[in-house]
Amino acid sequence: MNYSMPELIGKKREGGYLTADELEWIIAGYTADRIPDYQLSAFLMAVIFRGLNTEELSAWTDAMLHSGDVLDLSGTSMPKIDKHSTGGVGDKISIPLAPLVTACGVAIPMMSGRGLGHTGGTLDKLETIPGFKTRLDPDVFRRQLDELGLVLAGQSETLVPADRRIYALRDASGTVPAIPLISSSIMSKKLAEDLDGLVLDVKIGSGAFMKDVASGMELAETMVGIGRSHDTPVVGFLTDMDQPLGTEVGNANEMVESIAILHGDGPADTTELTFRLGEEMLVLGGVAADRTEARLRLEDAVQSGSGLDVFAKVIEAQGGDPTVLEDPSLLPSADHVHTVVADRSGFIERCDALAVGRSAVRLGAGRQAKEDDIDPGVGISILAKVGDAVAAGDALGTVRYNTDAQLAACLPILETAWIITDEPQSARPLILGEVK
Amino acid sequence: MNYSMPELIGKKREGGYLTADELEWIIAGYTADRIPDYQLSAFLMAVIFRGLNTEELSAWTDAMLHSGDVLDLSGTSMPKIDKHSTGGVGDKISIPLAPLVTACGVAIPMMSGRGLGHTGGTLDKLETIPGFKTRLDPDVFRRQLDELGLVLAGQSETLVPADRRIYALRDASGTVPAIPLISSSIMSKKLAEDLDGLVLDVKIGSGAFMKDVASGMELAETMVGIGRSHDTPVVGFLTDMDQPLGTEVGNANEMVESIAILHGDGPADTTELTFRLGEEMLVLGGVAADRTEARLRLEDAVQSGSGLDVFAKVIEAQGGDPTVLEDPSLLPSADHVHTVVADRSGFIERCDALAVGRSAVRLGAGRQAKEDDIDPGVGISILAKVGDAVAAGDALGTVRYNTDAQLAACLPILETAWIITDEPQSARPLILGEVK
Repeated sequence: MNYSMPELIGKKREGGYLTADELEWIIAGYTADRIPDYQLSAFLMAVIFRGLNTEELSAWTDAMLHSGDVLDLSGTSMPKIDKHSTGGVGDKISIPLAPLVTACGVAIPMMSGRGLGHTGGTLDKLETIPGFKTRLDPDVFRRQLDELGLVLAGQSETLVPADRRIYALRDASGTVPAIPLISSSIMSKKLAEDLDGLVLDVKIGSGAFMKDVASGMELAETMVGIGRSHDTPVVGFLTDMDQPLGTEVGNANEMVESIAILHGDGPADTTELTFRLGEEMLVLGGVAADRTEARLRLEDAVQSGSGLDVFAKVIEAQGGDPTVLEDPSLLPSADHVHTVVADRSGFIERCDALAVGRSAVRLGAGRQAKEDDIDPGVGISILAKVGDAVAAGDALGTVRYNTDAQLAACLPILETAWIITDEPQSARPLILGEVK
Repeated sequence: MNYSMPELIGKKREGGYLTADELEWIIAGYTADRIPDYQLSAFLMAVIFRGLNTEELSAWTDAMLHSGDVLDLSGTSMPKIDKHSTGGVGDKISIPLAPLVTACGVAIPMMSGRGLGHTGGTLDKLETIPGFKTRLDPDVFRRQLDELGLVLAGQSETLVPADRRIYALRDASGTVPAIPLISSSIMSKKLAEDLDGLVLDVKIGSGAFMKDVASGMELAETMVGIGRSHDTPVVGFLTDMDQPLGTEVGNANEMVESIAILHGDGPADTTELTFRLGEEMLVLGGVAADRTEARLRLEDAVQSGSGLDVFAKVIEAQGGDPTVLEDPSLLPSADHVHTVVADRSGFIERCDALAVGRSAVRLGAGRQAKEDDIDPGVGISILAKVGDAVAAGDALGTVRYNTDAQLAACLPILETAWIITDEPQSARPLILGEVK
């Protein structure tokens, strides 16, 4: 069937609905260079204002999903469940979570991204392990999943090529922030992993893409809906990203915190979120009857060291040095430390994730643009979080840095992150909502 | 100053307002190929949803206007007033209007377009005069305006090049129907003609771009506002285009009707609209104190033949044969005539301009695409209009055609144009509103 793109744009512009055939024709035509950028960008802008209904969104995601290869992981005997976070500051949860969940009998074909802007990326953190490779051939990926039940890799070039092209166009044409476009981008990549279920962590707050619970709920519900239309159960969590997660923000230092969680020595918030998301993955995978049973199994995977064992095998399989799990000092670490101190006594009212994330980028821990390099050893430790009592002169955080220029670029923003008040403050709730 | 186009797109997408500098940067950057099509099309779609406020629209129009040459017609001693119609079916008013107004002392540097889709174009109608040329060098244009006070030409390539490029992009990217984009396109071209005033005829109804009075009023008010911000008085009329204007729809036959109006023998509606728009041009040009005086002068220009004299000189100057004004049979005329008759007695409730316009395109009188040729001698005569009483078998219209294929393509649509009812119907009002 052949359609007229200006007519389809006009249909969406006027608030109409497109058929699955029409949407598939658009994605296929764009991927094959039959539809020019200027038509798709106008269409995407119309979608931002008019939205896509459930049927349209399902068809659009499906067309993206089938724009390239789809993994066939049927050789893996374990249930396959993945986890996706919409991105935040200090969000290293995937790293301790995945080995613990796999140790409990769930396979995870995880494909992660790099950090961009103030949010970090799992790939950058994994690559701080000496020798660790995240580019894997599809055959190697499949074989490792069969054997170890866990792969921690980068996005494959052959999966969902439409998403890469559309994402680049959105970035260049001011058409990024739209729930249907965000959710179809995420879900098409996850559905291409041949999953039995998915747990989503939608971050909410200053350091997240979604600034409020209502829009986060809409995004989570939209992705759960796409999963439903593709017979893939999705559980969505809304979690706090108004302050950074855990104590470490950076790359190697986030790996140190991740290893601590696997040893049972992690901070309370990152440990709790790891367990909470893991519970849901075990229940979705059918290896635990309910949350309570799942929690016990995950705690056992920490105490028995079976989570660390899985991670060690994965690191070894992907070319890395697994001794970092027992000796994290083998990870890169910057030479100097600077401490940020409280200028008054009181209670922490705010520890702004966006300010911490932006200062971490300036420090060299993140990227302003895709082609930027990062410095894996620099990072920020957050020592005072919302609700904590502090005295004047107490350390709020420390900065690990290699050059004075890094520190000078980072500090002016980092120092604005904390707000101290006279009134006692309660700690921020970590989990703000849940959608199934 | 250098801006980021994705940021400017985002600003408009979120409902913000752009500065004159930012808008000028966009137009200049697009005209100079620094801004790619896919960014401008996304921006235009955001403008469709968010609009442009008065200051933005004035700056946008100004930037378009200065994207190329602006005429300097200061050598012309007479006041310079132009007229623009948003386009309709059977709308030949410019042709009799211009010579009559010039005969009363107002210069008209008229640049017209060709027909596209169901609406006709003044250039196509003028070119039915044997030998008549509409492509004139700027110097020739200027000299003829000085000498005769009237030029009837096509758009100059050097005026408002941004509009041609943006219009082509809008057409291809589904971003045509937006009042700020339509009004800035029209007004930038008219303001480039160095005018002292402009009379606008905004057509309303099935055969027009604007389907209802409210949107037509908004368009007229927007263009009057742009004129005000450029110190050029604009008077806007809203006139009926739910049925065709006059009796002739085509090219040579519309020229015949135009000549009849100049002789004082035209149909009542086209004659009245010619006088009404002409009155306003004379008042704007300061050559008549009020409508009443202006009407007397225009009637005198018909009765004295001074309008015909001006037209004869213009035709001669532009290479045409002015004897067509006395002997319209010199104009091309198709070989065969078919009559469409009433299948019942009653009163004409509707004579649908869109159906007549579309059937005229199929007959060969208009273009489906820009590169199509037209057949100048074919056309439709409308013999029964809203309010007329007809008996079964009476002629509703006639079709002049050259080939059976033309007739066969035209008739199925033309025959749906008339609706006959038992109830007496009043004639449609011609003028629906006025904005200054």
